[in-house]
Amino acid sequence: MENFSFYRPTRIIFGRGSEEKVGKEVKKYGKKILLHYGGGSIKRTGLYDKVIKSIKSENIEVVELGGVKPNPRLSLVREGIGICRKENIDFILVVGGGSAIDSAKAIAAGAKYDGDVWDCYTGEKAEIKSALPLGVVLTIPAAGSEVSPDSVITDEDGWYKRPAGGEPLISKFSILNPELTFTLSAKQTVIGVSDILAHVYERYFTQVKNVELTDRLAEATMKTVINNTRLVLKDLKDYNARAEIMWAGSIAHNDLLATGRTGDWASHMIEHELSGIYDIPHGEGLAVVFPAWMKYVYKDNVSKFAQFAQRVWDVDTGLDDLEGTALEGISRVETFYREIGLPVSLGEIGIGEDRFEEMAAKCVEDGAIGQFRKLEKDDIIEIYRLAK
Amino acid sequence: MENFSFYRPTRIIFGRGSEEKVGKEVKKYGKKILLHYGGGSIKRTGLYDKVIKSIKSENIEVVELGGVKPNPRLSLVREGIGICRKENIDFILVVGGGSAIDSAKAIAAGAKYDGDVWDCYTGEKAEIKSALPLGVVLTIPAAGSEVSPDSVITDEDGWYKRPAGGEPLISKFSILNPELTFTLSAKQTVIGVSDILAHVYERYFTQVKNVELTDRLAEATMKTVINNTRLVLKDLKDYNARAEIMWAGSIAHNDLLATGRTGDWASHMIEHELSGIYDIPHGEGLAVVFPAWMKYVYKDNVSKFAQFAQRVWDVDTGLDDLEGTALEGISRVETFYREIGLPVSLGEIGIGEDRFEEMAAKCVEDGAIGQFRKLEKDDIIEIYRLAK
Repeated sequence: MENFSFYRPTRIIFGRGSEEKVGKEVKKYGKKILLHYGGGSIKRTGLYDKVIKSIKSENIEVVELGGVKPNPRLSLVREGIGICRKENIDFILVVGGGSAIDSAKAIAAGAKYDGDVWDCYTGEKAEIKSALPLGVVLTIPAAGSEVSPDSVITDEDGWYKRPAGGEPLISKFSILNPELTFTLSAKQTVIGVSDILAHVYERYFTQVKNVELTDRLAEATMKTVINNTRLVLKDLKDYNARAEIMWAGSIAHNDLLATGRTGDWASHMIEHELSGIYDIPHGEGLAVVFPAWMKYVYKDNVSKFAQFAQRVWDVDTGLDDLEGTALEGISRVETFYREIGLPVSLGEIGIGEDRFEEMAAKCVEDGAIGQFRKLEKDDIIEIYRLAK
Repeated sequence: MENFSFYRPTRIIFGRGSEEKVGKEVKKYGKKILLHYGGGSIKRTGLYDKVIKSIKSENIEVVELGGVKPNPRLSLVREGIGICRKENIDFILVVGGGSAIDSAKAIAAGAKYDGDVWDCYTGEKAEIKSALPLGVVLTIPAAGSEVSPDSVITDEDGWYKRPAGGEPLISKFSILNPELTFTLSAKQTVIGVSDILAHVYERYFTQVKNVELTDRLAEATMKTVINNTRLVLKDLKDYNARAEIMWAGSIAHNDLLATGRTGDWASHMIEHELSGIYDIPHGEGLAVVFPAWMKYVYKDNVSKFAQFAQRVWDVDTGLDDLEGTALEGISRVETFYREIGLPVSLGEIGIGEDRFEEMAAKCVEDGAIGQFRKLEKDDIIEIYRLAK
């Protein structure tokens, strides 16, 4: 087990009706807030009205900025930063999923940074040392951004999708009401599930030895997500299944499952090039990239992949055939994704091989990626090919 | 799943050499601190010197109060409160295990409370609204107090052992170096393990349905503790096994495993009367009480106990005999405790039945206890009898 530090001070407020507490929570931090959100769905569902009512009842002033798109854009972030400065905003409340939260985090950092916020997203140019405090009302369990210090933003100028992070970006509170996810379609739900599972895979597949507790916690999380995805697809308003997935989405990405180990994260970067260029949902891209990555790297630690197959997917091939067990596990990932309606090849989402070179080159602009196996440009092209 | 809120803002600093960071962490909060600890072991091992060196290098003033005993006493807490007031202490650093931490929490609360600190421990008399900030260097993985808002103190006047809790008592940081536990004897180690497992049992055995994620996370934690206890007993300096147990000890009690469910806690209260009166180690008392409690209540939810048997203890009796499976699971708890050198009966620790009535009566002074099954005085006497 490796040394680690773990600090996740977000207050989770979970359950039916929890969004009604938002005003009281915001009041602890702000008097004039930026309310940040995506499209019109929160207005259609009535969530917007509930949030506004709760906030206004605490006499908090609200400035609004909607319009966050999936793969959130730098241009809107810059607009938000401008508003925060002009209006003397002291808190940002996000109502939405990972895109809205990531956008809010970028605004929170930018509002406290003298230069251009994109500096924080391009390698080591600027560390995020402070940010406006922010809080979340979550509507899509997927990105885990409600508990993470991370933000991913896309610069439309060149379609670079890049991450930044820092403790000041950790949400002060996150309100998670599974009922708010009842309106997610089957498609939206499984795209989120793909993202959640990917967050566990990235941490689970490590070359670090002696990590039994976090291995088992990760396996527990994956099994729960798999079981409850099947349940929720039978009934999109199954509260308990929605609740399991929602809480698992936070556990998958609050870094508990990373304690004492080194995660990989190559697949996320390989996917970022896909969704950065083709503007596909991140979860779809991950469903396509991950099985290909697994096939490409499993030989570097067959026993880990065999353990994954056995404990998560109940593969019982026999210990005299660890490689067969490992491969059967990877096969079951694909089978499960197909079963729940996710694409498992680039062809299914209309992506050809004409830009493999370009994407792979962008992927390694800052050097080789991944920790389970270091991947160079040619490796990444091969993974895109395996995902065709 | 039930509604919940979850807030655990302790910064965990885990791994080899992590105690060297204590000065820098303390510096964030205090200039003149109370250093609180137990007996002389931290001086014998050299830990005391390391901590003092790290603190002095940050020019922090130190006032010391050692002498915390297992089942920490109210009298020492009162002495500590006096020191904090007289010396204008602004931070408490604890070096030790659960007893020292619980004692420090009581001092931290008492220093900011106008009345007698025992008010906070006797039912609803006083809520803990503020406390001096505190930090921990952990030497015994067991109580989980390094991540919990709870404290248990014993009033020597009548030997009442009572709990109190509140967010202000949550440690700002907890430094966990598994090497610091190398000097724990096999006996001390398994007493801690009993406490850790008990913290999981208390949360695991619930009548709340649809708690798959937390069930599985709890099972992951228990399996890891069981496996690594066997390893550490073969080699008390097995770093990885010590690390698994240490981190599991915090996970077992940071309330993640309680999210969305109602814990039981009757066994802890039944044990508190034992260790309150007979001054036995809490972990020994729990090893005796828990199997008895399980035998007494399992019929109230046979499938939960069967799941425990199957998933944690690998019992494979067959699903046509859930009761047999459940009972075999309970039997394996006892067998495991015997294997690792824990007592499983009151007789083994020299406790007769002459005070069963008195202890049971004290246990229900504030009403029936437990949530899995509500227990009255006669139930508790029966559990003490089953533990004979």
